[in-house]
Amino acid sequence: MGDKTMTTTEVGRSLPRLEARQKVTGRANYTHNLKLPGMVHAKVFRSTVPHGKILSIDTAEAASYPGVAAVVTGKDILDVVPEPYYGPAFHDQPILALNKVRYVGEPVAVVLADDPRIAAEAVELIDAVYEELPAVYDETEAMTSDAVVHDELKPAGTFPDLKHLNGRKDTNIALDFHLKQGHADAAFASAAHVFAHSFQTQQTMHTPMEPIISLAEPSGDRLIIHTASQSPSFVRSEVARLLGWSENRVQVKVGHLGGGFGAKLYIKLEALVAALALLCRRPVRLSLSMEEQFYTISKHASTFHIKSAVDKDGRITARKCEVLWNGGAYADIGPRVTQKSGFTATGPYDIAAADIDSYALYTNRPPAGALRGFGIPQLVWAYESHTDLIARELGMDPVEFRRRNILKDGRPHVTGTVMKDAAIDAVLETLAERMRWSEPFDRGEGTVKRGRGVAIGFKACVSPTTSVATVTVAADGSVTLHHATVDMGQGSDTAMAQIVAEVLGVRTEEIRVVDPDTDVTPYDMATLGSRSTFHMGNAVRKAAEHARTQLDDMAKSLGMAETAAGRVKEVFRRTYGMQAGTVVGVGTYIPEYVSPNEDGLSDNVTPFWMIGGTGVEVEVDTETGRTKLLKMVNAADLGTALNPRIVETQLSGAAIMQLGFTVSEEMILDGGQVTNASLADYKIPGIKDIPPVIENCIVDAHTETGPFGAKGVGESATFGVSPAVAEAIQDACGVRLTRLPMTAEAIFHALHGDKK
Amino acid sequence: MGDKTMTTTEVGRSLPRLEARQKVTGRANYTHNLKLPGMVHAKVFRSTVPHGKILSIDTAEAASYPGVAAVVTGKDILDVVPEPYYGPAFHDQPILALNKVRYVGEPVAVVLADDPRIAAEAVELIDAVYEELPAVYDETEAMTSDAVVHDELKPAGTFPDLKHLNGRKDTNIALDFHLKQGHADAAFASAAHVFAHSFQTQQTMHTPMEPIISLAEPSGDRLIIHTASQSPSFVRSEVARLLGWSENRVQVKVGHLGGGFGAKLYIKLEALVAALALLCRRPVRLSLSMEEQFYTISKHASTFHIKSAVDKDGRITARKCEVLWNGGAYADIGPRVTQKSGFTATGPYDIAAADIDSYALYTNRPPAGALRGFGIPQLVWAYESHTDLIARELGMDPVEFRRRNILKDGRPHVTGTVMKDAAIDAVLETLAERMRWSEPFDRGEGTVKRGRGVAIGFKACVSPTTSVATVTVAADGSVTLHHATVDMGQGSDTAMAQIVAEVLGVRTEEIRVVDPDTDVTPYDMATLGSRSTFHMGNAVRKAAEHARTQLDDMAKSLGMAETAAGRVKEVFRRTYGMQAGTVVGVGTYIPEYVSPNEDGLSDNVTPFWMIGGTGVEVEVDTETGRTKLLKMVNAADLGTALNPRIVETQLSGAAIMQLGFTVSEEMILDGGQVTNASLADYKIPGIKDIPPVIENCIVDAHTETGPFGAKGVGESATFGVSPAVAEAIQDACGVRLTRLPMTAEAIFHALHGDKK
Repeated sequence: MGDKTMTTTEVGRSLPRLEARQKVTGRANYTHNLKLPGMVHAKVFRSTVPHGKILSIDTAEAASYPGVAAVVTGKDILDVVPEPYYGPAFHDQPILALNKVRYVGEPVAVVLADDPRIAAEAVELIDAVYEELPAVYDETEAMTSDAVVHDELKPAGTFPDLKHLNGRKDTNIALDFHLKQGHADAAFASAAHVFAHSFQTQQTMHTPMEPIISLAEPSGDRLIIHTASQSPSFVRSEVARLLGWSENRVQVKVGHLGGGFGAKLYIKLEALVAALALLCRRPVRLSLSMEEQFYTISKHASTFHIKSAVDKDGRITARKCEVLWNGGAYADIGPRVTQKSGFTATGPYDIAAADIDSYALYTNRPPAGALRGFGIPQLVWAYESHTDLIARELGMDPVEFRRRNILKDGRPHVTGTVMKDAAIDAVLETLAERMRWSEPFDRGEGTVKRGRGVAIGFKACVSPTTSVATVTVAADGSVTLHHATVDMGQGSDTAMAQIVAEVLGVRTEEIRVVDPDTDVTPYDMATLGSRSTFHMGNAVRKAAEHARTQLDDMAKSLGMAETAAGRVKEVFRRTYGMQAGTVVGVGTYIPEYVSPNEDGLSDNVTPFWMIGGTGVEVEVDTETGRTKLLKMVNAADLGTALNPRIVETQLSGAAIMQLGFTVSEEMILDGGQVTNASLADYKIPGIKDIPPVIENCIVDAHTETGPFGAKGVGESATFGVSPAVAEAIQDACGVRLTRLPMTAEAIFHALHGDKK
Repeated sequence: MGDKTMTTTEVGRSLPRLEARQKVTGRANYTHNLKLPGMVHAKVFRSTVPHGKILSIDTAEAASYPGVAAVVTGKDILDVVPEPYYGPAFHDQPILALNKVRYVGEPVAVVLADDPRIAAEAVELIDAVYEELPAVYDETEAMTSDAVVHDELKPAGTFPDLKHLNGRKDTNIALDFHLKQGHADAAFASAAHVFAHSFQTQQTMHTPMEPIISLAEPSGDRLIIHTASQSPSFVRSEVARLLGWSENRVQVKVGHLGGGFGAKLYIKLEALVAALALLCRRPVRLSLSMEEQFYTISKHASTFHIKSAVDKDGRITARKCEVLWNGGAYADIGPRVTQKSGFTATGPYDIAAADIDSYALYTNRPPAGALRGFGIPQLVWAYESHTDLIARELGMDPVEFRRRNILKDGRPHVTGTVMKDAAIDAVLETLAERMRWSEPFDRGEGTVKRGRGVAIGFKACVSPTTSVATVTVAADGSVTLHHATVDMGQGSDTAMAQIVAEVLGVRTEEIRVVDPDTDVTPYDMATLGSRSTFHMGNAVRKAAEHARTQLDDMAKSLGMAETAAGRVKEVFRRTYGMQAGTVVGVGTYIPEYVSPNEDGLSDNVTPFWMIGGTGVEVEVDTETGRTKLLKMVNAADLGTALNPRIVETQLSGAAIMQLGFTVSEEMILDGGQVTNASLADYKIPGIKDIPPVIENCIVDAHTETGPFGAKGVGESATFGVSPAVAEAIQDACGVRLTRLPMTAEAIFHALHGDKK
């Protein structure tokens, strides 16, 4: 599939996103704009205690409030969903709390009203009484705490490898993943040097521009769900499962998303609006406020203990990693983060022996799930900070230390999988070159100091997963693509259309891309983990090639040499007589994959590796602790770029997002209550926080199994940001921070010996 | 495909229509219920003269009427459609009149307003001045009249066989079709008997319960058309052609139709709303009033001169037919009626020699097109009346005379096509048996006389045409069918779902059938001419079989024996790992066909024959001329019935519709103006007009090439009604009417020698 010498015209062209004009003219199809006749608005009443038994819920006053259509509690949900627990990894999350609440902000009841303001007013009239239970918030404490969040584990059947957890009781460990490669203990015993550090990350938010929103409408004996979701196929199957319906009775429609970043995966509001719509037999709309998003989904806080054995030449001979993932009150996809990211915890280095222990933990925090990077930024933060600290202790240049240990193609990763099409060294060398690493560096003057750092990371892609696409060609040669990859701003519609255009020999702008609709677009696992370009890209390419083959066959049987160049109409006319027809091409793609054995080892653990790194130059005001980024260089191996311009915006977008998690963003909890649940108090990067110089570098690479050599890129530039900034701060002013975010306050305290 | 011995469980089951509950609860998806944000309503200003040059159109007063958004004339249309002429056979019909008008009621201008009442009021303020031209209304006069409706013929490229007409000038003959089989002149010269008669039919209306309606909405650089259309694929390609766009920029969506009967084929309002939406950049809705439907599309009036040579044994040896079709001012599909029905004008009889001449004529009447039967009821009316008159003159029983001449399987039709799977004799014998033809018959008493008659007809199916369908299977085994056959009440969604269910071994009720949407459902020529059960049925069967094959292959590769019976989920899980997938089956069907030669002859002129007949017992009040039907028997060969209950409603529905055209319905024109353009003055059958006894008989038959042995049935019971009633009237009271409708007044005048 990936002939590197192939000349392409549509693939590799930096055309603007197909929907750009619609977006800037306000005509793009967002779920928020949808008005359904007769719809009611839902407002959620939420728990005020972090852990407790529900003793009573008094809804009487709310129910009689003028304009209220209905008030619904968890018990009412049972009328339409007898087993109302959902989740992609565990069936642990109730549609509305039943018997217990497990975090502050958990949905307990819902008010429905024609006017959303009435619903909001009536919610204030609901009163719930709880018997409080002991709570736990910290991942390390959760390992041993008597405060147990769930009485019993209920893994979802969709992950057969989690079945062994079924019925596990009295533990907050939702999943423990272990990898054992070689003999780490022996290597440590004989090591020239041993280094051990611990690092922490904080709980943060996705903050997509478009809030989380879902609508459900009953339609005959069916249900239509309109939702800003990254995973329409999953929503369909999970809602069907909850209702006990066949999948084709549930239709999930998705328009453009105003960002997702993992916040809009699996079930968020869909099960709730589905149940509400069936209860009241009217369309129901639920859109979250910014505050409510803090109570819905977040990024895992984590604690990472990392220890390396290094020989006298500066070669890492063994590494031990223990990672604790703070999953909050419901598992969401956390166990998968624990497992799928866990095995890369040793970093992109050539290490013969490793022990990895990775734990998914329940706590009484708002749930954590996938957020751009799926755990990798937390890992890279730790292992690259650790890398820099080792280099410092060895007195080596940190780039040179990395060069000495880097994992090259043809060498085995600690899982046993031999690296292929993974240009880790090229990413490192690109950063070194663009950062002018070997050249003298201005270290600032007076109280304003300058420093720099680079860091690299890598990520395996979630596997095994499936994508299916269809490509139809009408009699005039015009082409329509049906696929369920959700375009949430990353430009997937455009990239997929480029693949179709390349195969069929037409212009990308002429391709019609149909919005995801489970009645129409075939199955796709989900839009997550930078999997779409590769997985769906391959499915789309196969579908287009299938269509192309049929057109070619039609042309051949007519004795014609060509089909594409404007002769499609003729081929159709001559094949189908006076009438037309439709050529339908179907493509299904499932990459090869070998499940890890009981030691966490596998010959083929990922269909491809994403590699990214960042270099930064910072200026630290040592009087205030304030850090300013002067320059940022992002480099990535994304195979061959389908659309270089879009790729570059993915790189800078990911890096700036991670910059927020690095220097400012943190959900602050007090007694389980988020105390900064607004964008006034929770600081995402603004235009003035963005470095004045950003360079985005696509390294020369090619992925043999990718569509036209391409692979994913949406997360790659998140990897290196945090450790690069930490190293640059230390390089500037001598202090090393091991916990994110590295706020001015934290640096100030570190500088002045007043550790908080 | 049609294994007669096959046992089926879903095919042949009389389940109710899948959408029955939605319809009776008012939830079915009709285009009339659609409200688009910001839409304007259109109201049409129409010509008051039958033929004239437009000298001026004064729209100033209407344009300044409060609440009017815009007034649009034919010249404005040119801004978005430079060549605004449309039509399936000829590009002769302007979107709005340009330079000339050709019938009273022709659209000349449009008012757009937010409020439809404002639009209607403002239309009254438009003033147009015409220079009147000579007009012609009668088809016989049109053959030679100096009043020529179109200066020049412009055949659409979609029918290559009409190309020879291109540029033909100064004639009202849009198309002349001729068939010449054997030596008719010689047969007539040596005949024992020669019989010649002429018959006429009137112009009538389709009168679907749901009026004609279309909406168009601009969407980015695309256009979405929501329309109550029988031919979404045609609408897409024709609107794309008019706009000069690729087809995938035009999306045509169709819900359920409240009847169509041919009125909603090709372009009706779609080109107009498309142009209006592009002119005003807002969604535009246009719904016709009942009166306006009289000015939009109708059934051809016709004149049929028929002459037969009969030998001494009562065998027809030769037949000559001249049929004149009154097409009105625009061709619509009239030339196709002329040609495709024309070749069956000799009837279902075994006749060695024949000359057929069939003419499509322009007149200054509202346009005529396809109406349930596509010309066949006009032909059967004539040839079966002729058959009865010959039997009477020969003194033979009319059933016996038919038996002697009937066309049997294995014998050639006059086109040269050898008959196959055409149970004409079985239909005749079923009628004879159910009418107790050989038993004594009560002939009434006093002034109220009784009589009876039977008549049979047949129809070829339009060919060559293409249908494409896709069947998708989700991981839980639930099935979705995508096809563009429009369910307008005939039950096609249900019948197609039965085919899928039969192939895949699931229950029909579990199949999801997606509404036609050209972005989603593949090409289908159109829902017309009883072609869907056979053509789309075959495509759907192929698509389901394609899906089934893939499921079976997946099961086999897993070492499993079965797929269907509840194990699909397991097959998916084991094939796709932890995730799901979609199996997509595609089916394309194009029947074999041989184009007629220059003598109108072909070895394979139709993919199948529809055969139908009706027997009636009537009572005539000879004092008033009033006719009452006492009993009606409809019989048809429809191959194997997919759903016998739905088939029976098709038979009685068709026969009752034709009964209206037989005894009461007629568009009456005065100077080109329809004078009875309302259901108060134009009499369709009411509940009291329906015979107290109706028997609908499915004869034992099987169509080898049909899906599970099935073929079309929607028109078959229209064929025999009119001549059977005419014969029964003569049988009762001795008068023979040769022009439809046979109203009480007409019978009264015939009885009392006062022919009107």
